[in-house]
This record gives sequence, C-alpha cells and structure tokens, in this order.
Amino acid sequence: MADIEYAVGVDLGGTTVKVGIADEKGKIVKKIALDTHAHEGPEAVIAQIKKAIKKVLKESKYNISGIGIGSPGAVILKKGTVENPPNFPGWGKVHLGAIIKKEFKLPVFVENDANAAAIGEMIFGAGKKLNSFVMVTLGTGVGGGIIIDRKLYRGESGAAGELGHISIDYKGEQCNCGSYGCIETYLGNNYLIRRVRKELENEQDSLLNKWVMEEEMPLTPKLIYEAACENDLYANSLIADIGLKLGAALGSVINLLDIPNVIIGGGVAGFSHRLFNSVNESLTERVLKPIKPKIKVKPARLKNEAGIKGASALVYYKS
Amino acid sequence: MADIEYAVGVDLGGTTVKVGIADEKGKIVKKIALDTHAHEGPEAVIAQIKKAIKKVLKESKYNISGIGIGSPGAVILKKGTVENPPNFPGWGKVHLGAIIKKEFKLPVFVENDANAAAIGEMIFGAGKKLNSFVMVTLGTGVGGGIIIDRKLYRGESGAAGELGHISIDYKGEQCNCGSYGCIETYLGNNYLIRRVRKELENEQDSLLNKWVMEEEMPLTPKLIYEAACENDLYANSLIADIGLKLGAALGSVINLLDIPNVIIGGGVAGFSHRLFNSVNESLTERVLKPIKPKIKVKPARLKNEAGIKGASALVYYKS
Repeated sequence: MADIEYAVGVDLGGTTVKVGIADEKGKIVKKIALDTHAHEGPEAVIAQIKKAIKKVLKESKYNISGIGIGSPGAVILKKGTVENPPNFPGWGKVHLGAIIKKEFKLPVFVENDANAAAIGEMIFGAGKKLNSFVMVTLGTGVGGGIIIDRKLYRGESGAAGELGHISIDYKGEQCNCGSYGCIETYLGNNYLIRRVRKELENEQDSLLNKWVMEEEMPLTPKLIYEAACENDLYANSLIADIGLKLGAALGSVINLLDIPNVIIGGGVAGFSHRLFNSVNESLTERVLKPIKPKIKVKPARLKNEAGIKGASALVYYKS
Repeated sequence: MADIEYAVGVDLGGTTVKVGIADEKGKIVKKIALDTHAHEGPEAVIAQIKKAIKKVLKESKYNISGIGIGSPGAVILKKGTVENPPNFPGWGKVHLGAIIKKEFKLPVFVENDANAAAIGEMIFGAGKKLNSFVMVTLGTGVGGGIIIDRKLYRGESGAAGELGHISIDYKGEQCNCGSYGCIETYLGNNYLIRRVRKELENEQDSLLNKWVMEEEMPLTPKLIYEAACENDLYANSLIADIGLKLGAALGSVINLLDIPNVIIGGGVAGFSHRLFNSVNESLTERVLKPIKPKIKVKPARLKNEAGIKGASALVYYKS
C-alpha cells in the first residue's frame, strides 16, 4: 500500500465538511463528515476541518502526497487564501492553505469548489480524455470551471469560470450578485424552487401539485425529476425550459471560447437525458456554424462524493 | 532603411482590399486600396490582392519580413485557409495563405480580421502594456478577440472570440447567425440603423429626424454621434442604451474570463466618452465584486488604417 499515492480531499460546504482519502484513480478508501459550524466564524470552521482531517488520517497507513481543499468563495491560489465564502459569516480573508499546511506538514492545494469539480472531472471523470472543456455545476448556486489544454483557466485573479453569472436576459430578474438575468436566477436551486412553487398554483393537474400540496413532500429538484419520469406534463415542460435557458448561456460561452465540450454536474443535472436533450437542442440553435457539429454535452461522471474526489484531484493535478 | 524590419499588411474587406507597408512601430510608409471584386468570386479577389501587394512592393527598398492578412470569415491558422467569409460569394475554403506565399516567397500570416485587430492593439496600440484583454470591434458585424498572457486565444479550431454572438436576451430578435438576442443584433450597423430609422418616426424633435428626413443626410453612426454632440436627447439616450447593452454582454464575458481590461474599436466606438460612460455604468452593475474594482474599458488606439496595421502586426507577432 505504501507505494501507491493517496491524497486527502476536503469538501468544505456551508453545513458539512466532508473529508476523505482517495487513491490516484479517485477511489475513496476512507471518509468522514462533520458539521461545519459555519455560523460560529472562521476559527470554529478551521477547528472542524482540522478535526476531520485528523480523523481520516488516524491510524491510516496510506502514503499521503498532500491535501486538496475545495472551498466556496474566491480563492487566491498562491497563498491558498479563501475570501468571503457565501454562507460563512465573518470570514473576510482566511489563509486556509497556510493554516492547514502548518498543522499537517503536507503540501496543501486550495481551490474554489467549482474549479475543483472541473479538475476532478479532468483527472478522474468525464473529462479524462478531453483537451479542453467547460464544466457547469448546478446546485444552490450555478458555478463553473474552464479547462483549456488540460489546465484550469484561472483568469487575472483566479476568479474565472463564473458561468452562473452569464446573463441570458439583460433586463431579467436581479441576481444576488447585483447583475440581471444571470443563469443562476433561473437554475439556482432556490430560484428554481421558488418559481415552481409559484407556477404550481396554476398547475392543478400536475403530480407535483399533488405530492407537494396534498402529500406535503418537500419540493426538490429530485422530486421534479421523479414527476417528469411519471410523464408529468408540467415537470417535463419545466425541465425543457431549464435546458433551453442553460443552452442559451452555454451557447454564448461556446461562441466566445470555441470549446465545444461541456460537462454538467450537480443536483439539477440529475434531470438526466430530459435536461440534456433540451440543452442540446438549444445549443444547436445558438452555436455558430463552424463549431456546431462538434458540440458535445456530457453529464459529470463523479457523482457520489464528487466534492471529496475533486478536492483530492487537486493534489494529483499540482498545477 | 535596410536594417529596419517592415511588414506588408493586407486588410481584406467586402468592398475594398487595403494593402500597406508598416514598420515595427506600426507606422505606415506606403499604402494602396483596390476594389475587392468580391462578387466575381475567389479568383478575382485573389487577383486583386496580388495586384495590390505587387503595387506596394514595386520599387520599394524596404526590408520586408512577411505578409499579414486580416480576413473576414473563419481562418484555419495552420494552413492559412479562409472559410466562407460573409459577403464573399462562392468561397467555401480558399487556401489564401499558401497562394500568397507561393506568389511572393515571403512568410504569410492569415488571421480573422477581428483577431488581427486585437493583435494590432497588443503590438501597436491600447493593449501594448496589458497582459490580457478582450477586444471588441463594432462595425457591420460585432467581432472580437481575446488576448491571454500576450497571446491570442484561438480556441479548439481557431474560431474563438466571437463576442458579437454573446446573447443578452435568449428570446430576443433572431440574429443572422441563427441564435437569438446576440449583441450584434443591437450594435451591428445595419441592425442599429434600422432601429433608429424606425424610432425616428416618433422622434419628431430629434435633430436626426431633421437631418435625415428633411435634409436627406445619410443615417450613419457618425451622424448619430454628431447629433449627440449637439445635445440631441434622442441620440444621447440611444447611445446610453447601446452602452448598457454592450456592458451586459461584456459583463458576462468578464465574469466568465476574469479579464477586466476591454478595448473597444470600430465605427460605433467613435461615440466616444458618451458610449464609454454608459458601458462602464452597465459593467459596474453587472461584474462580480472581486473583479469590479479592476474594470478598465479603453478605446482602440489604432484608428486610421487599423486594418492594415493589425494585419502587419501579425508578422511581428509571429505566434
């Protein structure tokens, strides 16, 4: 076991910090999850991260090459500094990389979580054989990462890849970020659920209406998908509409970057072929002629523990 | 004169082919313009290009390092092949680079005209000191080029940088390219002039109305600018609206690429500070917080003969 390389992956979330040990192929051999204690401020969060890392490393005989951390918020790469992650009150700038490095005497690589997801797909997942691709992660927020020639494209200050804040309607709803009509205002979980809740008032025949209103099931992307699988008309038209909009944003990205490969991950991506068909249809209408025949949209391959895998991939990526 | 390096720049347009000799600083020492004869097909166009190059080279004692060609349409870099340039009937694929190289026995560099404009600004103009920037060219079409770390970003097949086909309204007017709400459908000259012509019917008090309807002056971006300089309310509100929309497209680009430097060139950019103020205002609303303080939008510095200068810069760029 000692000659195989292993890496620790830390998936820092607003409510849970998940830590695991993954091998060079992304297989997780050990893992743990702790409450993040985000509301208690940065010191409490750091204590939880350390505690979780210690727990997975305890009595482990793995040959650990380093620790990768996928964090929300803007990450300043050189210093491993995490700035103002949303849902982490009181952070400002935290030198997370340096703190963890000092504690564990191992190389530490900190990256924005969406960028880590892109690197994870490149090293372990659907991007293994792709030279360049655009990764979109659909969740509470809509994030992204851009891989060009097998390298993460970071931009001038490491903030590149914010696909969620591509606007598809300059006079659309105002986004949390201050801009208007960002794709996140259509696909971000909270925005999406709010929209569905409103529309269900006029969709008496929808299964979703029955499940949510009468049976009081919680309204989630997964529930919407289940209704679509039962051929619910409303759920299917909703997914088609989401796909059209995601295709509009991705169409602009592809026309700008001439990168025809797209990987979609995260909760809403669980809408499966229903979503992908609609994204493809929208892209076919919107992408410029010379690039159109090359469009390829794939679901992310890292599903369970994608966060830990993406974070551990940072150690193997080392760039 | 023999030890200074010179380059030939060919600016291939739908109606005119302009050819000049430029020194290493972008100063044009000799130039000529001929009718392109685009409607007569590729052979006639190539004959005109050769004729124009011969004319500028005739009796010239300049030490010529190569020939740069800025062409409309998709350019396949390695072969110098030009594919389906708009307004050039009957082209398909033309091996322009190889043909010109064979004729003149000089290194030949062919690039899409918007990319050549970006390289021109990097080598001779407003991008001389910038590491990375986004270039937008406003004209009949809206084009662009992306410079990352002093290199033109070409994408997977050399088609990158199509800023004109960033959509700002997924359900907007259909663009010539097939997509909807592309920024070109708002700022491309023909679209813009058509819009103004329509709006002027309800703008009886506008100077433009008087100039165009009564004095039968041709409606051009320049005329709109002149009306704005006379404090014409309609012309000013139009320019503000164009700036807002251009800012919406650029906001998405900046959020995606984390490149806060933008250079705007071409006819409509002549709207000057009136346009730039409005673009800046729109960007300030739309760009993500960590990038916002770094936004810098500048007018292109190559104005007269920007096409020749950009094309000749391809020789000095050599990448």
